[in-house]
Amino acid sequence: MSVTTTPVSQSRFLQRIQGVPTETTPVWLMRQAGRYMPEYRALRARHTLLEMIRQPELAAEVTLQPVSAFDLDAAIIFSDILPPLEGMGLELSFVKGEGPVIHNPVRTAGDIAALRVPDPHESMQGTLEAIRMVRPELDARGLPLIGFAGAPFTLACYAVEGGKSRYHENARILMLSEDALWDQLMTKLATTAGEFLLAQAEAGANVLNIFDTWVGELAPHHYEQRVLPYVRQMIDIAAGAGKPIILFGVGNGPLLEAMGSSGVDVIGVDWRIDLRIARRRLGPDLVLQGNLDPVALLAPWDVLRREIDAVLAQAKGDERFIFNLGHGVLPATPVDNVRRLIEYVHEAR
Amino acid sequence: MSVTTTPVSQSRFLQRIQGVPTETTPVWLMRQAGRYMPEYRALRARHTLLEMIRQPELAAEVTLQPVSAFDLDAAIIFSDILPPLEGMGLELSFVKGEGPVIHNPVRTAGDIAALRVPDPHESMQGTLEAIRMVRPELDARGLPLIGFAGAPFTLACYAVEGGKSRYHENARILMLSEDALWDQLMTKLATTAGEFLLAQAEAGANVLNIFDTWVGELAPHHYEQRVLPYVRQMIDIAAGAGKPIILFGVGNGPLLEAMGSSGVDVIGVDWRIDLRIARRRLGPDLVLQGNLDPVALLAPWDVLRREIDAVLAQAKGDERFIFNLGHGVLPATPVDNVRRLIEYVHEAR
Repeated sequence: MSVTTTPVSQSRFLQRIQGVPTETTPVWLMRQAGRYMPEYRALRARHTLLEMIRQPELAAEVTLQPVSAFDLDAAIIFSDILPPLEGMGLELSFVKGEGPVIHNPVRTAGDIAALRVPDPHESMQGTLEAIRMVRPELDARGLPLIGFAGAPFTLACYAVEGGKSRYHENARILMLSEDALWDQLMTKLATTAGEFLLAQAEAGANVLNIFDTWVGELAPHHYEQRVLPYVRQMIDIAAGAGKPIILFGVGNGPLLEAMGSSGVDVIGVDWRIDLRIARRRLGPDLVLQGNLDPVALLAPWDVLRREIDAVLAQAKGDERFIFNLGHGVLPATPVDNVRRLIEYVHEAR
Repeated sequence: MSVTTTPVSQSRFLQRIQGVPTETTPVWLMRQAGRYMPEYRALRARHTLLEMIRQPELAAEVTLQPVSAFDLDAAIIFSDILPPLEGMGLELSFVKGEGPVIHNPVRTAGDIAALRVPDPHESMQGTLEAIRMVRPELDARGLPLIGFAGAPFTLACYAVEGGKSRYHENARILMLSEDALWDQLMTKLATTAGEFLLAQAEAGANVLNIFDTWVGELAPHHYEQRVLPYVRQMIDIAAGAGKPIILFGVGNGPLLEAMGSSGVDVIGVDWRIDLRIARRRLGPDLVLQGNLDPVALLAPWDVLRREIDAVLAQAKGDERFIFNLGHGVLPATPVDNVRRLIEYVHEAR
């Protein structure tokens, strides 16, 4: 018995992005593969995070876990925004309780000069191979695959600070004070990340997502003058693949006009902006993605449903809307809430 | 020889708040008394933070340190937003490297029911006494004094989480899921904080500042429905003193209309919003305070000056503007940058 599957190009997710009306709202979740899933935790108990990212079989398995468990409208390749920094010459590890650590942070002109712009086919070979490995299964399910990379400002924060930091002050002083060094650093990061996106598209990703996690820390005029040009560099490179591009940043409400002018197809917004205001500020053409508060997924179902309703009400009648969270799924999220969320969004009219 | 001093009521700071034109832009800085000052560090080396807050002589001394060192337009009483929680029954300490810790966080209906609404004249006696102690010196200098308290949402985050937390998810789940408990908790916090502000005004504070540090984490509809009513409760109580009230929140850009409707006189904004946009959204009547990125104070003077110029350009022609940072002075800030900032703002036309 053969099951007829809609081809990936006819998937709700790609259709919405291309402006083709779909009756059902497509939904995927940032960090949809993660610690909230028992399948994930079982694998994670036996491997480090970097092993799970670097070994294609493991990354492919984790990528498929949520699309096997739930009726999601897209898969996103399992990885992290930081591994591309390793190919640039930075030593990365994930330390329990501390998060990512760069052991040789970029602090001097010499450090920046020494950064390489690696060939992603070598430096990110595992992720590209994982993309090729999940394609047949996703094709069988008619599901598009999202590839992704970090945006240059967020990557610069990690590279300069050497890990998480509250204010990213070293990166931001560099940004404010050292025009030539900042340009050199950001150009290298934008090129590395842009070429990695391009390689992911060539390997089989249907959509490319740029994550600019820390960009909400910036004054709008700093974003426009000192960050957006490098986001555009990255987009110009990635756009060579001819695939739709999503741009997301935590706390990006104040930056929407600038982000909307970057040349991408989809803007992801976090939960701290009303979707109607976001739509008004972005204009009618861009696709809007978001923005349920991830904390709502920790609440009982009746509360979660009310919160989903609030997001759907804000997006009512918007033909260019994709349902997502306003940030990644939190580790304490009950699996059942994720399942019900996805069903509920699909059934909503 | 006697020096004629302008009375406090004629100070630039109070005049601006009252809508009286002043030629010079008044300036004060959030956390203007703090670790960046050697005088502060010398005292801090011999006392715990809670001692410095609780002992009136110490709090008075620290309050006066920055107004002695710099030509500031206001003093702010040295304290923290959390000590009022002690009078409610919470056990507070400041742990090195970890920040504030509440040893008995509020987790159950019983915990919330057990919280007291203390008389600030008993529970915050030290701060009120410090206010009385600094008055003569400030009167001699013609300087107004700012009293302050934390807003109920931010206090709830600390009370429920037991300290700092990235997502404040326990507090926010309570907010979303437990209407009656949330109302009980927030009413107690708003009453405690409001009555403390009132007592500070009676002790000699000329202006009252409400700090809502974590409010930028909220979706606007959650702020309006579940937080703003309690901010209004607090303001209603504090307004009994007849003193101007400032409301500030980190990341409050998306909440400006709601905050502006709260009944306060001054809205403080962080650096992530252009002052012209903030003015447009707040309307012409409220006083606007902000919003230099505190990280700019870590940069060399020519960079800092350019950043001050950018803020002043955004506020150009705005008769209802008070210069401040967009958040507190960072510990690594060079003292000389603070001095030059204040001189520069005063000389700017």
